Amino acid sequence: MVLDYNFRMNLIIVSDSDQKNDLIHLTDYRAIHIREILRSGIGDIIEIGLVNGHRGKAEIVSLTDNEIVLKPHELKEVPSPMPTIDLICALPRPQTLKKVLITSATMGVRHLYLIRANRVEKSFFHSPLLQPKNYTPFLIEGLSQGKHTRLPEVSIHDRFKRFFEEELPAITIKMPEKPALLVPDLESPKNLSNVYSNKKSSLIVAIGPEGGWVPFELELMEGIGFQRFTLGRWVLRVETAVSGILSQIELIKMLNN
Amino acid sequence: MVLDYNFRMNLIIVSDSDQKNDLIHLTDYRAIHIREILRSGIGDIIEIGLVNGHRGKAEIVSLTDNEIVLKPHELKEVPSPMPTIDLICALPRPQTLKKVLITSATMGVRHLYLIRANRVEKSFFHSPLLQPKNYTPFLIEGLSQGKHTRLPEVSIHDRFKRFFEEELPAITIKMPEKPALLVPDLESPKNLSNVYSNKKSSLIVAIGPEGGWVPFELELMEGIGFQRFTLGRWVLRVETAVSGILSQIELIKMLNN
Repeated sequence: MVLDYNFRMNLIIVSDSDQKNDLIHLTDYRAIHIREILRSGIGDIIEIGLVNGHRGKAEIVSLTDNEIVLKPHELKEVPSPMPTIDLICALPRPQTLKKVLITSATMGVRHLYLIRANRVEKSFFHSPLLQPKNYTPFLIEGLSQGKHTRLPEVSIHDRFKRFFEEELPAITIKMPEKPALLVPDLESPKNLSNVYSNKKSSLIVAIGPEGGWVPFELELMEGIGFQRFTLGRWVLRVETAVSGILSQIELIKMLNN
Repeated sequence: MVLDYNFRMNLIIVSDSDQKNDLIHLTDYRAIHIREILRSGIGDIIEIGLVNGHRGKAEIVSLTDNEIVLKPHELKEVPSPMPTIDLICALPRPQTLKKVLITSATMGVRHLYLIRANRVEKSFFHSPLLQPKNYTPFLIEGLSQGKHTRLPEVSIHDRFKRFFEEELPAITIKMPEKPALLVPDLESPKNLSNVYSNKKSSLIVAIGPEGGWVPFELELMEGIGFQRFTLGRWVLRVETAVSGILSQIELIKMLNN
């Protein structure tokens, strides 16, 4: 598991296990980051966020080669990003999945469903990256980048039909309002604003594998209410499609305000 | 120079130097791709595009371990993507630059200006990746991905002030119409639709370095007509900002039609 240590942490993300007696103890890459990239010292104030919790400032009260101790203050609740966006993603190869994890966390995705599809290589389901201890650091990196604290949930679904016919309906029925179900398709004459009219409803967007969904898959999705729309003129890589669709949702949301 | 050979070539990009007696001779990674990923054989038809030229089909007329020979037919002119989009990018570190090159080519950027900024590390300007023979393969990869043939131009500008005060004005004055000059800024109350109203005009978008532009830089840009707008709620990585802004431009373009 290789994190990209060159990225800039805009927010230091801490969890319950880092806290002891109202202080935060950091000994890992975050301590290195504070010392070497942020070049902070005792008395300096940095920005922190608790996983799925408050965000605010903390003062560096101790700094040694082995450990940095922070005293948090001014922690405030961060409202969860609205509307909620769930991403369904045909399981990509591990190098691509890392980027999808980071971008999903950065851009406020609530839940990432990684699913089997016809053009997904079976071996991808055996990747060690699918273990929570291996993928969570990429989500945390995404939170640090995006400066918020809501950790996306991740689940893995190794049967395409069962996911769309049983698992997904069981999820959407519990949502307070029927979500918009969307699937990007280059050939569609519609764009996001045509298929996402109620700007307050949640969205569930399904991103296909490299090479796209096969016709059977698209038809099955349409059968349960997914609407096709195009992101634009180009065939995009999976990770580019993910940041593209999330950016278009941001714009649609702003147009509505 | 390491290309990502796992990506799927949606279009095989060929250049003049591959052509001899009306046939196309491929001996490099494209031949490997046709044989091993596309698994094509003699008589099969594949899609090809000439750099900055026509696009169409070609028949495989010979296939050996060392060479694949293609006979092109049905080549048609591809209209250049409109409106033209130029990207100014504070020179990122090489790993990020590779992604910016690929995405720029995939999504139809006309010209990529790589410039110095306060938060750009000076060492980045010494990267071998800045040599055309090293960065062009990433542009070609992007064309293959996006299924079009217009190769972005790339230029490198190692003085910030001179670029904005002398070089850029000399470029924009030659454009048939005044382009929209845009700079993403998280804090701006405006969005893309507020600052890009004439949907037919060209765009020049300036993407800052990790950590952002410094105030002096933003003020200088505003002084020559750049308008700030926000891409959304999150602090994005450079490569995510590039695909995000290009996707938002695609959406704005479609809203207008």
